[in-house]
Amino acid sequence: MVVVDINCDMGESFGAYKMGRDEEILDYITSANIACGFHAGDPRTMKNTVRLALEKNIGIGVHPGLQDLAGFGRRDMNISPEEAYDIVIYQIGALYAFVKSEGGSLQHVKPHGALYNMAAKSAILSEAIAEAVYKVDPELILFGLAGSELIRAAQKIGLSSASEVFADRTYQDDGSLTSRRAEGALITNHDAAVKQVVRMVKEGSVTSLQGTEVSIQADTVCIHGDGIHALDFAKNITAALKESGITIATLK
Amino acid sequence: MVVVDINCDMGESFGAYKMGRDEEILDYITSANIACGFHAGDPRTMKNTVRLALEKNIGIGVHPGLQDLAGFGRRDMNISPEEAYDIVIYQIGALYAFVKSEGGSLQHVKPHGALYNMAAKSAILSEAIAEAVYKVDPELILFGLAGSELIRAAQKIGLSSASEVFADRTYQDDGSLTSRRAEGALITNHDAAVKQVVRMVKEGSVTSLQGTEVSIQADTVCIHGDGIHALDFAKNITAALKESGITIATLK
Amino acid sequence: MVVVDINCDMGESFGAYKMGRDEEILDYITSANIACGFHAGDPRTMKNTVRLALEKNIGIGVHPGLQDLAGFGRRDMNISPEEAYDIVIYQIGALYAFVKSEGGSLQHVKPHGALYNMAAKSAILSEAIAEAVYKVDPELILFGLAGSELIRAAQKIGLSSASEVFADRTYQDDGSLTSRRAEGALITNHDAAVKQVVRMVKEGSVTSLQGTEVSIQADTVCIHGDGIHALDFAKNITAALKESGITIATLK
Amino acid sequence: MVVVDINCDMGESFGAYKMGRDEEILDYITSANIACGFHAGDPRTMKNTVRLALEKNIGIGVHPGLQDLAGFGRRDMNISPEEAYDIVIYQIGALYAFVKSEGGSLQHVKPHGALYNMAAKSAILSEAIAEAVYKVDPELILFGLAGSELIRAAQKIGLSSASEVFADRTYQDDGSLTSRRAEGALITNHDAAVKQVVRMVKEGSVTSLQGTEVSIQADTVCIHGDGIHALDFAKNITAALKESGITIATLK
Repeated sequence: MVVVDINCDMGESFGAYKMGRDEEILDYITSANIACGFHAGDPRTMKNTVRLALEKNIGIGVHPGLQDLAGFGRRDMNISPEEAYDIVIYQIGALYAFVKSEGGSLQHVKPHGALYNMAAKSAILSEAIAEAVYKVDPELILFGLAGSELIRAAQKIGLSSASEVFADRTYQDDGSLTSRRAEGALITNHDAAVKQVVRMVKEGSVTSLQGTEVSIQADTVCIHGDGIHALDFAKNITAALKESGITIATLK
Repeated sequence: MVVVDINCDMGESFGAYKMGRDEEILDYITSANIACGFHAGDPRTMKNTVRLALEKNIGIGVHPGLQDLAGFGRRDMNISPEEAYDIVIYQIGALYAFVKSEGGSLQHVKPHGALYNMAAKSAILSEAIAEAVYKVDPELILFGLAGSELIRAAQKIGLSSASEVFADRTYQDDGSLTSRRAEGALITNHDAAVKQVVRMVKEGSVTSLQGTEVSIQADTVCIHGDGIHALDFAKNITAALKESGITIATLK
Repeated sequence: MVVVDINCDMGESFGAYKMGRDEEILDYITSANIACGFHAGDPRTMKNTVRLALEKNIGIGVHPGLQDLAGFGRRDMNISPEEAYDIVIYQIGALYAFVKSEGGSLQHVKPHGALYNMAAKSAILSEAIAEAVYKVDPELILFGLAGSELIRAAQKIGLSSASEVFADRTYQDDGSLTSRRAEGALITNHDAAVKQVVRMVKEGSVTSLQGTEVSIQADTVCIHGDGIHALDFAKNITAALKESGITIATLK
Repeated sequence: MVVVDINCDMGESFGAYKMGRDEEILDYITSANIACGFHAGDPRTMKNTVRLALEKNIGIGVHPGLQDLAGFGRRDMNISPEEAYDIVIYQIGALYAFVKSEGGSLQHVKPHGALYNMAAKSAILSEAIAEAVYKVDPELILFGLAGSELIRAAQKIGLSSASEVFADRTYQDDGSLTSRRAEGALITNHDAAVKQVVRMVKEGSVTSLQGTEVSIQADTVCIHGDGIHALDFAKNITAALKESGITIATLK
């Protein structure tokens, strides 16, 4: 049986600012990455998002980011491995307490934005993040870009990992994502995006932007919860995966 | 046997800003209230303070404050009970993760500054805070001003509580602290402060600013970790309590 | 000739978070109150909002708030008059620099949210705010609730002031706004709201929630820029004022 | 006559956190770089520092930093040139208002920490910063590392600039500072530091870490206001410069 998880970032509202269609998108995913107040999110939003995820029986993940609310955690910052370790521990704990107080448990950790991207390329940063996760709870699953340093660091320290693929992003020959700043980074055609995902999950393969066949591990597919087409896309991709005989299921 | 706990706020440094003489003061206390990043403190400081407290076998407490770093959490804010609940849960979790990752466990929660003072007088705020503590971990001890709403709320929900007294503050006839803005609020004479504490602990009584004898429960004494005389005062008070036959011991 | 200004809060987006329909609402107002980064807004948003206001020849105002992004500046905070003075100076300057760099000039200052409401009732807070405005630029107009301490403080120090009225809020016998928490605080019927405004501007009178006729000075009408009906309401109120022979014009 | 300015970063306290010995160090400098709340500083500190600088007739400078209080603005962040432009405008304005309200005027702008270092090497970032300064006030002097892109950008847009040298840092063959992470970056011997400064100012030359003579423009010398030896060093360097016949004077 071919199984895949679908994850989505959520809980990104902050105070009076609303973001994302969390409640609706939860019907199409199996893992929720919940922001923890550094790049987005706030205590009330975390609590409410945890409640929603528990109601719908979705795997709950910590989504730690850089301390950069103004930049939504998307701007690379030259943090030390120790700083990465510290902010990941902190954010895991903050979400843990909401999950605990609501009677649930944490499933995974997926770094956000610039922290995710910097870690993908840096063994030392990834090892600091993996150690933080491991030391708080070695049962947590670490989500990272398929083929990245984050996955290697998880394996090295003895954490379960989930290799993540993107439906709407193109890949390079080395299996990395095409930089958002480069041409052709995004797949805007829904059908093409859906086809890419189905192939990655079923065949473990993707055609790079350069036209090469690249092996890729696809344990979890990332979809987006905001944007006007987010829900449509979530529906389409879910339907296409099921039609292809793939089971969509949470990782635990 | 008369036993009392001595607690002190710590971990109040923030980034490049240093505050307090935590390492030295830890030799004279039995419970440490560690700031969690809202009114003071940051992830690295939390980790380092937890490590120090574990080394010295001090009871570790969460010290949640208002989200007011600019005002050090000392300015009353008109937060709702739900907001109090949410920020307390968040901060307990953040510290919990550092304690867990270092192999320790949490002992207590003591709200900071304006949150502590507002809760002392507000049943509804205190109940929200007590519920937050209870729902994350019903074994945690809630520290509050002796005779305050926080102590009542802890008892109501079924939490252990520790009634806190202050060595260097005067009391009113109703057992409340004299407002810092009122004349005679502070006891600046060390001997007088030490005597007041010993009497509160041994006899359960304090002479109010107005000259009345007032009953007071003294489970834990708050001392301060900054100021040039902090260490001297910590030494004196510890010595005086011991000389009076009082055992200084952690609450668990 | 009866003249009135229409003002609206704007520039309330923050980083990735969007709020308000500033560009559209600018067609219906004569004064823009631009958030300055404390309760909402950020440098880029300030710049872009200033540019829009200059293009459309709208009076530009500073909209200083409490340092409470998480609470959108709506939670009362126990700040000292000196703190009010300091944060108002800071925020005036921040917006001034964008206006200056774009070749424009500032018209007014209108405190936001809790700062506005606390000042309305506090002479000492209002005097600190008025002094801050005066010392940066005595030509600035201070906007405040009609009949409030803010208006009195402006007059006392020698600043021009603009008495503000609300279309969608009910009034008390003493001319104050009905608290948002009280029943009947909001006028949800568009026609009733429009009628109330026209009467306040033309006749200087409003019927209180209790049914009494109350005198009121109406130099500027506050409308809201978010909410699904904001634009419709802006159109209706503008049309109604014009039909009543009232000229809508900026204050300078 | 050989003239040089001496500048120091100040106003770096934040809320309850104190940093630097501003009042004392002001007796030895001619230009003060005042933090503006992004990496350090707060409205009250800005006001008080401006007052001190005006009393002592010191040139007042804006010291804009990255929005990174937790990292004291020392961590490189991948900001866009537009973001640099926006945060510099904002911070100039904030300090301007305090200076204006106290009856003074601004003299210069010196970016802080990571913003300063990133700009030194990036023409595009430096041009954005120089444009921000120029558009708020073309009379402001832009301080930058001697020989850096910031100095070039100032000249290109038509701003006066001041080339800054460091007493306690070593230089590379290309005239750049030795990275703080590299060995030999700091000159810890006071006499050596003082001699290096005197030579840079009088002869326009410095011996690089590699032993080469390198030309260097020295309009202003940066000294530090914190650290236990800060005052002694300030006294020594001032005395040595005067003994060498150099006049210490502000730039305007």
